[in-house]
Amino acid sequence: MAFTFQINNDVHFNHDKQLLATATAAAPILKMKTITSKRLVSLTKDSSKLGGIWTKPAVDQNLDRPLKKGDSLIIDFGNHYVGHFSLHIDSVGSPMDAPLTLRVKFAEMPVELSQNSADYKGWLSSSWIQEELLHLDVLPTELKLPRRYSFRYVELTVVDTSPKWQVSFSDAQVTAKSSVDPANFEAPKLKDPELQKIYTVGLKTLEDCMQTVFEDGPKRDRRLWLGDLRLQALADYATFDDTQLVKRCLYLFAGMTAEDGRIPANVFTSPADTPDDTFLFDYSLFFVSVLSDLMRHQFDSAVLTDLFPIAKKQMDLALTKVDDQGQLVLDDNYPVFVDWSNDFDKGAAGQAILIYTLKQFIALAQLHGDDSSSYIATLKQLTDFARTSLYDQKAGLFVSGPNREPNIASQVWMTLAAVLPQAETKALMQRTVEKLFPVKNIATPYMYHHVVEALFISGLNDQAVALMKQYWGRMIELGADTFWEAFDPDRPDYSPYGSTLLNSYCHAWSCTPVYLIDQYLLKEG
Amino acid sequence: MAFTFQINNDVHFNHDKQLLATATAAAPILKMKTITSKRLVSLTKDSSKLGGIWTKPAVDQNLDRPLKKGDSLIIDFGNHYVGHFSLHIDSVGSPMDAPLTLRVKFAEMPVELSQNSADYKGWLSSSWIQEELLHLDVLPTELKLPRRYSFRYVELTVVDTSPKWQVSFSDAQVTAKSSVDPANFEAPKLKDPELQKIYTVGLKTLEDCMQTVFEDGPKRDRRLWLGDLRLQALADYATFDDTQLVKRCLYLFAGMTAEDGRIPANVFTSPADTPDDTFLFDYSLFFVSVLSDLMRHQFDSAVLTDLFPIAKKQMDLALTKVDDQGQLVLDDNYPVFVDWSNDFDKGAAGQAILIYTLKQFIALAQLHGDDSSSYIATLKQLTDFARTSLYDQKAGLFVSGPNREPNIASQVWMTLAAVLPQAETKALMQRTVEKLFPVKNIATPYMYHHVVEALFISGLNDQAVALMKQYWGRMIELGADTFWEAFDPDRPDYSPYGSTLLNSYCHAWSCTPVYLIDQYLLKEG
Repeated sequence: MAFTFQINNDVHFNHDKQLLATATAAAPILKMKTITSKRLVSLTKDSSKLGGIWTKPAVDQNLDRPLKKGDSLIIDFGNHYVGHFSLHIDSVGSPMDAPLTLRVKFAEMPVELSQNSADYKGWLSSSWIQEELLHLDVLPTELKLPRRYSFRYVELTVVDTSPKWQVSFSDAQVTAKSSVDPANFEAPKLKDPELQKIYTVGLKTLEDCMQTVFEDGPKRDRRLWLGDLRLQALADYATFDDTQLVKRCLYLFAGMTAEDGRIPANVFTSPADTPDDTFLFDYSLFFVSVLSDLMRHQFDSAVLTDLFPIAKKQMDLALTKVDDQGQLVLDDNYPVFVDWSNDFDKGAAGQAILIYTLKQFIALAQLHGDDSSSYIATLKQLTDFARTSLYDQKAGLFVSGPNREPNIASQVWMTLAAVLPQAETKALMQRTVEKLFPVKNIATPYMYHHVVEALFISGLNDQAVALMKQYWGRMIELGADTFWEAFDPDRPDYSPYGSTLLNSYCHAWSCTPVYLIDQYLLKEG
Repeated sequence: MAFTFQINNDVHFNHDKQLLATATAAAPILKMKTITSKRLVSLTKDSSKLGGIWTKPAVDQNLDRPLKKGDSLIIDFGNHYVGHFSLHIDSVGSPMDAPLTLRVKFAEMPVELSQNSADYKGWLSSSWIQEELLHLDVLPTELKLPRRYSFRYVELTVVDTSPKWQVSFSDAQVTAKSSVDPANFEAPKLKDPELQKIYTVGLKTLEDCMQTVFEDGPKRDRRLWLGDLRLQALADYATFDDTQLVKRCLYLFAGMTAEDGRIPANVFTSPADTPDDTFLFDYSLFFVSVLSDLMRHQFDSAVLTDLFPIAKKQMDLALTKVDDQGQLVLDDNYPVFVDWSNDFDKGAAGQAILIYTLKQFIALAQLHGDDSSSYIATLKQLTDFARTSLYDQKAGLFVSGPNREPNIASQVWMTLAAVLPQAETKALMQRTVEKLFPVKNIATPYMYHHVVEALFISGLNDQAVALMKQYWGRMIELGADTFWEAFDPDRPDYSPYGSTLLNSYCHAWSCTPVYLIDQYLLKEG
């Protein structure tokens, strides 16, 4: 994920050398594979695809056909990859009497190629646009771009040569990188071809985001966010099962807490392990969740011993935000994220997330042999407040904020947190479907994941599958090779950044259908 | 020099391995020196400087002052250099949460920084504009740009960061390159401070163009042109005296003749020794001149033995263009250059250049022990035609072309070729000064060099010195650190390319005051 900018230059951080050394020791050696392509495409209008743009084969072009000033071509690598691009470039004609100016633009989706980078006026840095303007003094050359890109399509534009010679390309290839080798995992065969497609695209999304950390998006942000890690880890356990990478990421967060003990929402690992000065209430708490999920998936007492104190600190700090009535009261300096959309009140969802993680924490404390009695008392207080003050008996729905708004996020997180007795949960989600569906104003696969999981947990499997197909299936219809960071089916051109040019079309928090299908349709189904 | 494009893809070339191996063995090891600068300047309007633009100290700026999106600064290295630029770049503030987009623009003259590269619409490749757009994923970094630039000023523009951090620069340096070390040459002390300045700037121009070959311009073209080599070699003999580099360049031309024997006007040496498919009548003939000048400066029988046959071939081919009356008749496929200006007829100058080089060839043939009698006969025929058919007795001037135009270039080259008896030469150049001066429509220091030398040869030293000061001195007044490729004092914004942005402000054929001063004011003065 990403978020509006927090600047907290005055926050100082701990750097726990031992925890960070454990993180470093767990760093993966990335698996490389080389993909070549000579397949050229051109853009075409297609209203059924994202942004109304799709590709068609460029039947009259060859990769090595000489290009003059102003000419361009688009190479299609056939699927989404994360890695390094290389290309052989030669001159044809008279000797090369001027440098070549070459523009290389990388795109995950064809629509990106239809957008002029110079027109970008969004609020996130334009530096994220995957486009290079190169001057090459001497041809032939093997162009090996030093930066890593995330793409399926590469557009090469000959910005200038001289009238005396043209440019010829060959050996276009990507050296793709991931911490996992998909050949080592046999994906399940699903009877439903639509779900099978969703599973395949989700798995590719996860693979491409698994690098030296679980990245949120290999195109943009390219770093480890704690809320995203929670979902990536669940998807990973259901597929590649690379628990070492999950442990590495937990140790990175544990090793770089603020002086007050809070875990930052994200960390950087290059040029050195560095905590970001952004803090999100729910993200800090999800350290408890990731640790809890890992212990349930593969117990490791050494990890628990190392990390339990960090988890406890997150919970203790979170509980200072609870008032005497058992209500979570947050301020703008430590907001709860829940979703990119700000069109709904997040208070009740935040309360539920605290309950959700507190339950996980109590289980961890018991596993660790810690006294959990005070936490159990607080849990009751929080739950009681939710059941009494945040529940509208007449409507049969949880309500949020001063306007007592009954939004989907509140019902979903209260369900995930099991605030109501199991018997009442199904009815709650049924009322949610009846009264609040179709889903509106939710902008991320991250929040959609929670909606689907709440439906599954409530036994509403048909509705869960239908929503998965409506949402993730719709991205595939629109052309996705990997699932996206942000997607509002009612506004396919939605961007949190003021321009879809900076949207990330391979974003890890959207990969969760592999987990949902595994957990609720294969294991339980 | 450069010229309108000739495309002769069908011409095949000889590659004489032995001659080219000799050229390779003579390649210099470049001398490096490191120059650092913290001196920042800003642009200011100044009608007395080229393009009305000059610099002033940027008193309120420091190199390491943090810059945000849109900020820029200009580093002044204090003199012109050719080499590699490096810079330490760090981020300041919150962690670097997006790549840095940095524009780096190099300029020989301040006016280049006032011109927007995107506005360039000239006919030479825009690829020559010394500007890079870089994306840096990780800071701090030592930026070491791989390309070589020719510059005094470096403009750094922070195109984008993110609101969370700024950019800070330090350790700006250029690693300057040349085949010669100026510390090994003690420049003469001249009484005239104006001539001293002209000498100093000419010497720097020569130094910066002496690389692995005598380049024409280190900013643009960056290759070995034969006509330019002739003047560079003369300037070199009068100063650094690096005869090995002259020999290397002669062997490069000799090793790569067209199948008909013609030497191309220029050659490339990277990635491999490659002849250009451009042919200029006078440039091919100047192989004779360079060989002749070298033998007079430092006789070398092995070089003469190797290269005399190549020189002979140029002369024999040139003489096929002479008709029965002794008139040189050229066509557009093998034009004579003389000057960038096309505002005067070049026929008589071409005839004179043939006579000039034929005399040098006859001397070489005699030195080599070859029979020169037939060439002596042809010389008489060419000279007779010039004296009778190209000389207007009434005006006392040579005339050129169907309109019998009495232009400066004709008088000058006829003087240099000593077509008239010595006694009449002074009168010819005096009439030239009286009737044709002030000089108009000559666009290059290359042609101005020949005007000045003709004045000196005719004994008109005062006029020669005055013209040197008017022309080269004017470039210094306009801000030159090195002399320029093209300069018309009546049109300081003249460019052969449709935009001064591509003009080369360090161009070797303009360095000749060091030769002229040495030859005619120090040796003979």
